[in-house]
Amino acid sequence: MNKEDLIPGVSFLEDGTACVVLWAPKADTAAILLNDKEQLPLNKVEKGYWTLTTDIIKPFDKYSFLLDGTKQLPDPASRSQPDGVHGQSQAIDLKSFEWKTTEWQATPLQDYIIYELHTGTFTPEGTFEGIKNKLQHLKELGVTAIEIMPVAQFPGGRNWGYDGVFPFAVQNSYGGASGLMKLVDACHKHGLAVILDVVYNHVGPEGNYFNEFGSYFTDKYRTPWGNAINFDDAGCDEVRNYFVQNVLMWFRDFKIDALRLDAVHAIKDFGPKHILQEMREAVDELMAQTGRTHYLIIEFDLNDKRFIDPIKEHGYGMDAQWIDEFHHALRVTAGGERNGYYSDFEGIKHLAKSYRDAYVYDGIYSEERQKTFGTKTDNPGSQFVVFSQNHDHVGNRMLGERSSVLFSSSMQKLMAAAVMVSPYLPMLFMGEEYSEQNPFLYFVSHGDQELIEAVRKGRKEEFKAFHVQGEAPDPQSESTFTKSKLNWGSMAQEQQQDMLQYYKTLIRLRKTLPALSNPERQKLSVTYNDTQQTLQLHRWKDGNQVYCFMNFSKQPQQIEPPADALKMALNSAKNNDHPKNIIQPESIIIYTNKYV
Amino acid sequence: MNKEDLIPGVSFLEDGTACVVLWAPKADTAAILLNDKEQLPLNKVEKGYWTLTTDIIKPFDKYSFLLDGTKQLPDPASRSQPDGVHGQSQAIDLKSFEWKTTEWQATPLQDYIIYELHTGTFTPEGTFEGIKNKLQHLKELGVTAIEIMPVAQFPGGRNWGYDGVFPFAVQNSYGGASGLMKLVDACHKHGLAVILDVVYNHVGPEGNYFNEFGSYFTDKYRTPWGNAINFDDAGCDEVRNYFVQNVLMWFRDFKIDALRLDAVHAIKDFGPKHILQEMREAVDELMAQTGRTHYLIIEFDLNDKRFIDPIKEHGYGMDAQWIDEFHHALRVTAGGERNGYYSDFEGIKHLAKSYRDAYVYDGIYSEERQKTFGTKTDNPGSQFVVFSQNHDHVGNRMLGERSSVLFSSSMQKLMAAAVMVSPYLPMLFMGEEYSEQNPFLYFVSHGDQELIEAVRKGRKEEFKAFHVQGEAPDPQSESTFTKSKLNWGSMAQEQQQDMLQYYKTLIRLRKTLPALSNPERQKLSVTYNDTQQTLQLHRWKDGNQVYCFMNFSKQPQQIEPPADALKMALNSAKNNDHPKNIIQPESIIIYTNKYV
Repeated sequence: MNKEDLIPGVSFLEDGTACVVLWAPKADTAAILLNDKEQLPLNKVEKGYWTLTTDIIKPFDKYSFLLDGTKQLPDPASRSQPDGVHGQSQAIDLKSFEWKTTEWQATPLQDYIIYELHTGTFTPEGTFEGIKNKLQHLKELGVTAIEIMPVAQFPGGRNWGYDGVFPFAVQNSYGGASGLMKLVDACHKHGLAVILDVVYNHVGPEGNYFNEFGSYFTDKYRTPWGNAINFDDAGCDEVRNYFVQNVLMWFRDFKIDALRLDAVHAIKDFGPKHILQEMREAVDELMAQTGRTHYLIIEFDLNDKRFIDPIKEHGYGMDAQWIDEFHHALRVTAGGERNGYYSDFEGIKHLAKSYRDAYVYDGIYSEERQKTFGTKTDNPGSQFVVFSQNHDHVGNRMLGERSSVLFSSSMQKLMAAAVMVSPYLPMLFMGEEYSEQNPFLYFVSHGDQELIEAVRKGRKEEFKAFHVQGEAPDPQSESTFTKSKLNWGSMAQEQQQDMLQYYKTLIRLRKTLPALSNPERQKLSVTYNDTQQTLQLHRWKDGNQVYCFMNFSKQPQQIEPPADALKMALNSAKNNDHPKNIIQPESIIIYTNKYV
Repeated sequence: MNKEDLIPGVSFLEDGTACVVLWAPKADTAAILLNDKEQLPLNKVEKGYWTLTTDIIKPFDKYSFLLDGTKQLPDPASRSQPDGVHGQSQAIDLKSFEWKTTEWQATPLQDYIIYELHTGTFTPEGTFEGIKNKLQHLKELGVTAIEIMPVAQFPGGRNWGYDGVFPFAVQNSYGGASGLMKLVDACHKHGLAVILDVVYNHVGPEGNYFNEFGSYFTDKYRTPWGNAINFDDAGCDEVRNYFVQNVLMWFRDFKIDALRLDAVHAIKDFGPKHILQEMREAVDELMAQTGRTHYLIIEFDLNDKRFIDPIKEHGYGMDAQWIDEFHHALRVTAGGERNGYYSDFEGIKHLAKSYRDAYVYDGIYSEERQKTFGTKTDNPGSQFVVFSQNHDHVGNRMLGERSSVLFSSSMQKLMAAAVMVSPYLPMLFMGEEYSEQNPFLYFVSHGDQELIEAVRKGRKEEFKAFHVQGEAPDPQSESTFTKSKLNWGSMAQEQQQDMLQYYKTLIRLRKTLPALSNPERQKLSVTYNDTQQTLQLHRWKDGNQVYCFMNFSKQPQQIEPPADALKMALNSAKNNDHPKNIIQPESIIIYTNKYV
């Protein structure tokens, strides 16, 4: 069988014929049970695959698989779960969608300014349609890409998305496959790229029927979520194909611009070709066929440049990666706590290092990890995504506080600018741009009572050291979810408007000053003063010189702008008439030469 | 602390000062208990290390470590365990040995013809001294390197060596450190290189005190022998140093020429620099210092060229690897069983593939592994070690039968030649050269009754399908060990002498025909006839052409030597006056052009 014939689940040919592909090596017989009535036996082909080509199955038909005549199960590669994770699957013709924005020119990766959002809490509607209503706001803000937290079908209607159990099905309560397509279409119309967060390192606990079908997991490696997904053990060819096909579906059928692959350090693959490299090769092939451009961005905490090096340099060919280390260094510099994963970070020294070297731990000893950690990296700045907060750093706090309630307004502005003037790709977390005050809490809506209790208990356990701050909110409670929704009404308030205008200014600066959007990391120098808590970042490109002075202390500090720092492009303290060699507390001043 | 100061255990400086280094991060106090009397407290330094520089400890002193004032334990980096694995350690000055053979010129890897032996059963004495008595035999045989199965201190006096628990101590019953040094010295005097088999993927079960000291193991990965050695988890820097220093000790202090690293596929290391690469770099550094040459050879079943590619090509820099696949294909072609790991092998087709491509599974689907397996490899022939049997294939049979009792004399000769004419490095298993009839069985001499029963039970379980052949010999019984000793007395017999002369001829041919010892794999062509079970191997170098015709069938077969096949260099059927286009059953004919 060739690759085209191995698209799992039910798909439709141009003439309406349905093609069914199921990998169920453990089964002795397999059939489709259509609309709870008709049984269509599948044909056993090689390597545990079962297939059927038929004109009986039509789009929107509901179906289950019937294994060994007794086990009725949803399709592991279902495109739609209209009745939730335990219900029947539904056939969907992904190719029948009528795209309106056909002239979309992919945004080059180096121009990405990313806005991360969670569909359920971004808008009152909590749907893709809701997001569409906010695209004008995002366009005016100036970001160039939205990043949607995972949308694979999960249990119930409330979840961050990392408990998804149907990687090919779009969450029904968000608007399903067609809802997502309409959103992508609208984003492209607004000039926004779409990044989708996908999870290939584990599968959620509820509605996870994978073990009934085949060896999707291996007990060779342990992950925080149990046995690892089987990328290199017996049966891995078919599991690898399943996930590679998933990547291709989002790009080919949904016109998603980039994927953000969740926690790839938890993908364990000792084989000679890493699964990420296989995905890269498959995407390269697709791009050659369609002429479109797609990016693979990884969440990754191993500081190992092999993952982002090109394949021809023996890397895995990932386009970019998140670097939490920049965030950690920035947060500590800004005066945040130093517990947990922050304990390894020393503030301004490490922030300067992250500007210069990307990885802070680049072959040095990490006390927290108790080992020497990381490699040096010379990869361009456009291969790293940075942020002052994201869903994890907010939501993994017991009370889900955003930076807006943890840091002063002036410090929020300084942090925002610190991200925006970096040689890396900046990312905002939804609401950050107007200092949203609502929390982003951890929430679920499982149907399994034991699991609900386990999650509650785990959450309490995690935060037992914080009990003085009160009880951890109940993740299963609907109110925990509701509280986490953005309060768009608040945006009209003065403080919110002030922050919003500031973010717009920052983003405009990044876009207009060539030195700031320059991904060439060698055209950057950084110095810092530990006592004063000041940092000076110099960036340049062609004739454009940009000097950023940051003061993380609570006192005014002296700075020494060079002779060609002729124009003040920004002063976050809004005090433009002070002496040129003074910077206000918790503020940033950006000078340029005359270029713009 | 720099690398030189991190040599674990007790070592001596030129002036006789003893340096003690212990990694025991779990301990609150640590001391040396000297000769069961005097306590010398160790000083806590960084990262869980404890050190002491003293002139109180002298060579041959016995000592233990005392942790937290109560736990008395042998040194995990002991150089000598005169009273076995549970006894005290003994300080040894490895640098005081007086080397006699100082002019040793390392044998180039491509000239290695390897003879694998097990010290305990190779000679009646079962010691290094015993081996020395046989060096003249080996020299006359023509092999250029001996490979000694592991000698790290193991429980009791009978063991293959893979249950070693003191990687830095040489088995006392074999003759200890000085015995091994004398052997290496004598080998070099005889022009023989010495390869030592070392085990870095697990530690034996009895006398394994590692967990008392620190996190030598990780539960992130599972191996057939339990938790994996910790090469990438918290504390791994110190564990990595321990094993790197072990490599360096063998080369620097014992003048071992090459290490054979046991089953490196069971070494789990996801870090950015694989531990094998770190070993390579440390060895390169040592070689630059000493001007001597050392090789790292791996036992490895993953068919992944990354392990043997040079570091500058993003490989791990291993010099060579074993390829069991050549053996499997050869054994099946010779008519051996096709159960277990042989099931994936199709005989002559795969033998031809292994001659041509080294890896048989080089990116094709393996039914046994149920996945696509391996990479293609263009590495030179001198990076692969091949054999028609080794300790594993003999000893992992229930009755430990060598090829000599499983195959006819003529087939043994054909198999021997098939190895010797390959572009790879040939290896013999002790006794093979004279068709030794004694078995090589699995034997242990544990002191722990529970473990003894577990090993017995495991062995019975493994061979329960073979019960028709009788009981599996008791691994713990001394007679199982004694039966496995070579019967040197038998060598005088006619059949044995005939085989011995044949091996000498073969080895001489390999050494004298430039085409045969040529590691350039592109100067080779191979064809085969599945029906006739014949294979023709053509090899060349400069003006020398060599044509090898092999007949694995029980019938005479037709061959077609080319016009320049002018001289018959060998006919294993000893029938030189038959027609030139006929080859006898189970035989090989080697033609050359006139070059030699």
